[in-house]
Amino acid sequence: MIRVTVWNENVHEQKHPAVQKIYPQGIHTAIADGLRRLDTAGQLEVRTATLDQPGNGLTDEVLGSTDVMTWWGHCAHDKVDDKVVARVAARVHQGMGLIVLHSGHFSKIFKRLMGTPCALKWREAGERERLWTINPAHPIARGIGPCIELEHTEMYGEPFSIPEPEEQVFISWFEGGEVFRSGNCWRRGNGRIFYFRPGHETYPIYHNPVIQQVIHNAVHWAAPSAWWSDIHAAPNVPADQAPEPIQATGASVH
Amino acid sequence: MIRVTVWNENVHEQKHPAVQKIYPQGIHTAIADGLRRLDTAGQLEVRTATLDQPGNGLTDEVLGSTDVMTWWGHCAHDKVDDKVVARVAARVHQGMGLIVLHSGHFSKIFKRLMGTPCALKWREAGERERLWTINPAHPIARGIGPCIELEHTEMYGEPFSIPEPEEQVFISWFEGGEVFRSGNCWRRGNGRIFYFRPGHETYPIYHNPVIQQVIHNAVHWAAPSAWWSDIHAAPNVPADQAPEPIQATGASVH
Amino acid sequence: MIRVTVWNENVHEQKHPAVQKIYPQGIHTAIADGLRRLDTAGQLEVRTATLDQPGNGLTDEVLGSTDVMTWWGHCAHDKVDDKVVARVAARVHQGMGLIVLHSGHFSKIFKRLMGTPCALKWREAGERERLWTINPAHPIARGIGPCIELEHTEMYGEPFSIPEPEEQVFISWFEGGEVFRSGNCWRRGNGRIFYFRPGHETYPIYHNPVIQQVIHNAVHWAAPSAWWSDIHAAPNVPADQAPEPIQATGASVH
Amino acid sequence: MIRVTVWNENVHEQKHPAVQKIYPQGIHTAIADGLRRLDTAGQLEVRTATLDQPGNGLTDEVLGSTDVMTWWGHCAHDKVDDKVVARVAARVHQGMGLIVLHSGHFSKIFKRLMGTPCALKWREAGERERLWTINPAHPIARGIGPCIELEHTEMYGEPFSIPEPEEQVFISWFEGGEVFRSGNCWRRGNGRIFYFRPGHETYPIYHNPVIQQVIHNAVHWAAPSAWWSDIHAAPNVPADQAPEPIQATGASVH
Repeated sequence: MIRVTVWNENVHEQKHPAVQKIYPQGIHTAIADGLRRLDTAGQLEVRTATLDQPGNGLTDEVLGSTDVMTWWGHCAHDKVDDKVVARVAARVHQGMGLIVLHSGHFSKIFKRLMGTPCALKWREAGERERLWTINPAHPIARGIGPCIELEHTEMYGEPFSIPEPEEQVFISWFEGGEVFRSGNCWRRGNGRIFYFRPGHETYPIYHNPVIQQVIHNAVHWAAPSAWWSDIHAAPNVPADQAPEPIQATGASVH
Repeated sequence: MIRVTVWNENVHEQKHPAVQKIYPQGIHTAIADGLRRLDTAGQLEVRTATLDQPGNGLTDEVLGSTDVMTWWGHCAHDKVDDKVVARVAARVHQGMGLIVLHSGHFSKIFKRLMGTPCALKWREAGERERLWTINPAHPIARGIGPCIELEHTEMYGEPFSIPEPEEQVFISWFEGGEVFRSGNCWRRGNGRIFYFRPGHETYPIYHNPVIQQVIHNAVHWAAPSAWWSDIHAAPNVPADQAPEPIQATGASVH
Repeated sequence: MIRVTVWNENVHEQKHPAVQKIYPQGIHTAIADGLRRLDTAGQLEVRTATLDQPGNGLTDEVLGSTDVMTWWGHCAHDKVDDKVVARVAARVHQGMGLIVLHSGHFSKIFKRLMGTPCALKWREAGERERLWTINPAHPIARGIGPCIELEHTEMYGEPFSIPEPEEQVFISWFEGGEVFRSGNCWRRGNGRIFYFRPGHETYPIYHNPVIQQVIHNAVHWAAPSAWWSDIHAAPNVPADQAPEPIQATGASVH
Repeated sequence: MIRVTVWNENVHEQKHPAVQKIYPQGIHTAIADGLRRLDTAGQLEVRTATLDQPGNGLTDEVLGSTDVMTWWGHCAHDKVDDKVVARVAARVHQGMGLIVLHSGHFSKIFKRLMGTPCALKWREAGERERLWTINPAHPIARGIGPCIELEHTEMYGEPFSIPEPEEQVFISWFEGGEVFRSGNCWRRGNGRIFYFRPGHETYPIYHNPVIQQVIHNAVHWAAPSAWWSDIHAAPNVPADQAPEPIQATGASVH
């Protein structure tokens, strides 16, 4: 069983009728519904969490029972508590998978795990996007085919200031002339991270079955096979417990 | 001309006679002197900065005139202001090289740029270390030979929870039986980062000419060939400025 | 079901009594027996193949029904037919996992997939080796613990001229003073490759249950989740089948 | 001084009037002329070599005095002698830079160094291409700007079956709807390799000053800072020369 927490800042949905119309129950509900629909094998346990909940919805209890988290945020990145970000990062280091969606590229948690600005160019013109599958046998591309075509999307353009991806799954072509690395994998500690570009508050991207399939695939890919619980520990190995016999010498400030 | 700032928390040197004896002018002075000694071609402009100075010694002015920074810290990592860390990270993203030394593995700036815990095992027993050059033609290994032998060092042992290095230059063997990835390269944005393990407050590591040579080599390797000044910008590309003609459509919350 | 082919040149075993004594049925049999012993879940179908068989034991039929191959060779690397090597490489590209053992570092297939010399230093002195698990939550390290200690081994020393590993699992410490990257992962096309250092014809390494466990883990890790059958194809996309409508123009030599 | 050898199979130019018209002196001459034109600092020594010369133009003497090679081939890949390919690969391992151009993706030398099929999709329709600079401060992108626009090019489309690039500099957008990783860096042994997509026998790509600038930049980037001459050696370290004193024990087949 993979325990999934679908996190959403859930702010646009409260403020903008155009967004409410597309995501009346919030973007998180659309994503969670997609995961549940595709979970015909009964391997997922899906719940949602939002910014307005206590601890931004990400208490120790929630994190401690989450194997994979999906993250959507846009206008409220700064509202996420730094302590919450630290907790999420620590959980990723131990093994939790993290799927960062669309405008989540500028979230505190993504920038913290990447160590780079994660900036990009953008344009809202409802143009056509084609995500090419550049690694067709990758688990995240299962069942997707050579490309995903989206009739109306926001454009994200390079340069995308991320660390060189460890694995790339999708690269986007845009009608207006730009390209973008749209599906990228990294590891941070024992956690797997997948950034997936599509998704926007004023387009029904998360209702698209193919997009849902990618997120579903990514959740399975990012689920930890084991936990590295003490990854943050920095244990002392006393001289008399060294693997080889040694004589301790020299000064110490400890 | 490469402008180098040698940063040091400079705390142990004020408190512990054993450290004062080895580094009477501070670890930073030993490192800076080594760089100046080896700069026979007159390509470096070396200065030092310490935690107790205004802005932790790293004001906008200092950073704005630094091409490569070396970092030593140990007991006062938490005393470095978060705003200073953000400034240093931003400068690295734009192109500044960063050489992180020894216990700097747990500095805020290194963990921020790596995105991982950067934890390790350790033992102070004055044992022998041998750093093997695993990439002998790398610029950082210039003139170093097959290995560096240090008679008395603190041990750092794996697992070292860093992202997979993009290039490895040295791996250490320890008398007590452990190994460690001791010389590792990464890029973050436009900045090059080198972590170099040797160096300890109670051993005269930074007076060792071979260690000085590695740091000197690393400074040259990490110096930016160009700056990416606007790496943090996320510009909008209006529909009428798209490279290909498009018709804007769809809603927007902006 | 994962179909495993354990390949062995099987030459030393025919010639040297010291080797015969340790591996009376050949190294391949010891490796295959270890895999079968650990396959308590009944997920593996294990067979062996050797150099002296038709097609070096690696006919199209054998390869076409192999999901993961383990490779042991030493003195007869040059006896493996170039056409067989090409077939094995092609199968790896499509998705077959490949576990290269010990002196297999100099096999044609490993050098071909790596693109580098894969050279190293060596010493036969029966010294102690300690393989440190540097990525303890990696599937290949499952159940292994912080390190593997081998009382008597051949030494392999750096520099090991391989491409930078994509993931490292083990680094070795040797009694005589050297270190070595002993467990390294790469992908080539759709195939996963794991190089694992231990194993030698005159030491009973492949009878060691912990070594068997690592190989067993690696087989599971390297098994393809999907095949990329047409990875060698370079299809033409005629102008009238372009995703976007275009007008063909310009000359061609085709 | 960087010694550059511009290699070209030079076959289309002898056979097809359409190619002769664009490259009357051969593609190699256009590339070499571009390098010489841009070498205002007098740092390059440029010569050409072609398939029809003795040793395919790549004798030990030529290779031994080459720091960086550029490679263009298309219809005669199979005509390059395997021994020549082995020599070129060995020189790359020691430090020679290699710039592989356009249809060189299917050359023996590129496939050998990559270890993968290096296949792709293609279309000759004279469509528009835009190469986006995704790493604007990279030395290879110096002076190039946000993108390179080519009015008429052959299309190359993903999936491009290469190992994950270590650094990416350019990604292409095509009028017909595809994308491609057009400027990619790898290291193999001590050699730097850059694959650059543009260039075609029936379009005047290599007369384009911006394309020439990229190749010029790449030559400087790929030039070795040091040679690793004995990278192919696998030396024995006798027990009595081990860094740490050990007692040799155990059997050996040597």
